[in-house]
Amino acid sequence: MLRETLATAYRKDPALHRARSAEVLLYQGVWALLAHRLAHALWIRRHSFAGRLVSQLSRMATGIEIHPGATIGRRCFIDHGTGVVIGETAEVGDDVTFYHGVTLGGRGWWVDHKGEKRHPTIGDRVTLGVGATILGPITVGSGSRVGPGALVIEDVPPDSTVVAPLAVAIRVRGRSVEPSGEPPPSARW
Amino acid sequence: MLRETLATAYRKDPALHRARSAEVLLYQGVWALLAHRLAHALWIRRHSFAGRLVSQLSRMATGIEIHPGATIGRRCFIDHGTGVVIGETAEVGDDVTFYHGVTLGGRGWWVDHKGEKRHPTIGDRVTLGVGATILGPITVGSGSRVGPGALVIEDVPPDSTVVAPLAVAIRVRGRSVEPSGEPPPSARW
Amino acid sequence: MLRETLATAYRKDPALHRARSAEVLLYQGVWALLAHRLAHALWIRRHSFAGRLVSQLSRMATGIEIHPGATIGRRCFIDHGTGVVIGETAEVGDDVTFYHGVTLGGRGWWVDHKGEKRHPTIGDRVTLGVGATILGPITVGSGSRVGPGALVIEDVPPDSTVVAPLAVAIRVRGRSVEPSGEPPPSARW
Repeated sequence: MLRETLATAYRKDPALHRARSAEVLLYQGVWALLAHRLAHALWIRRHSFAGRLVSQLSRMATGIEIHPGATIGRRCFIDHGTGVVIGETAEVGDDVTFYHGVTLGGRGWWVDHKGEKRHPTIGDRVTLGVGATILGPITVGSGSRVGPGALVIEDVPPDSTVVAPLAVAIRVRGRSVEPSGEPPPSARW
Repeated sequence: MLRETLATAYRKDPALHRARSAEVLLYQGVWALLAHRLAHALWIRRHSFAGRLVSQLSRMATGIEIHPGATIGRRCFIDHGTGVVIGETAEVGDDVTFYHGVTLGGRGWWVDHKGEKRHPTIGDRVTLGVGATILGPITVGSGSRVGPGALVIEDVPPDSTVVAPLAVAIRVRGRSVEPSGEPPPSARW
Repeated sequence: MLRETLATAYRKDPALHRARSAEVLLYQGVWALLAHRLAHALWIRRHSFAGRLVSQLSRMATGIEIHPGATIGRRCFIDHGTGVVIGETAEVGDDVTFYHGVTLGGRGWWVDHKGEKRHPTIGDRVTLGVGATILGPITVGSGSRVGPGALVIEDVPPDSTVVAPLAVAIRVRGRSVEPSGEPPPSARW
């Protein structure tokens, strides 16, 4: 498990070179996933307070918040990770990559009920870009990509890509401009 | 105060069950609000360095940054909380819910002046979605909702909802697609 | 260096008054930049593990992640800072201001290669708004501003401003509304 987790980080992080591969031991995404294995094991054995305590300590150390009830598959990689929030009923497949700031959350306290499925299901080999916000009991199909900053509240089919709008220029070289039409989104990610 | 803060967390967080309600003592949003009560009490008594120190220690432990000068009403709930920033002259009413990553900020260092009101005023019973960014000395009226990822720089009337654009698909089941018109925003939140 | 860093924070933060200027010693943005000077000095002397360790400890204390290989110019200011991620091959000029949640990142693990330039180059006197996400080996020209929440994956010329879409209203004073055309973006930032 540890070996697989470390190998995944090495494979997915271009900043990690062979000669400096010991750095992977410092990766907060690796710590958070190992802490989650412990928290989840406690949780499913109904040691819920202990599970929550492990989760909260991990959050303090890593900035990554994974509810101990969440299910995470194999060879997951969380890069950078600050601000990641994964809710209690989220289910994540194998070989999923998270960048920082990704939320797998509920729709809101006024529509979600205790004890029901409130959080997304993520298939295998999905990449979730920085700041992607995926809300509600929806499914992101296997092989899909969710772009940086994308807000997703409906199902995403397998092998699909969804993207957020790009910024537009309102001043160029000191002169105000009318924003032209958005650049073609297919160039985005 | 403590009892009210804990009861609010219990009511607003669907992940918190009766049988496990002791978990609420681990909630960083609860800690951050209690620390802010202390920091603010120091601040208004002109112990500004001590107030700031409490605020910074709370930020290190919780990831939630509340300037000691900010005014926060009763029964506030901050869920998850990493990345929340509440500025010095922000004023928040009663029964307000923050998700993580919410900013109540200024417009920028080149337009804001020391000693003036630079941050938003939030009414009662407002919900601020994950990553909502509300900038400048504007007002969000009571009973309103600010959607996840929403960027707001003008007043929001009472009992209103403002939302960010949803992500659009540029590839579906392995084939590139022209992004169709955006989904109807009224379905969003 | 320390004096210049502190003076910059004082000049750029309207919450910092002359009578309370000792508070600047508590600023996590100041700590993160000082830690980066040390981490980068270790890194370029090929003490890569030690550099990474300093960077990770700084990240735990400040919520700001700066890869020890990144190049940062003089009089930089990072305000609030939680969630800031600056990648290994990013280059930042002089007098640059970061708000919290800014990413200078790569395009993704499946397109970026170890050992090549993968992160942005930021000119002098650039301001990067809260949550701005700037991805790939692109250039943001000197004197430019990147608005809050802006997603940027192409070059920005000098003295330019790029902005994200504002939120739109879908309910006003309790009644659903058709979203009218977006407000003129030139009013934005």
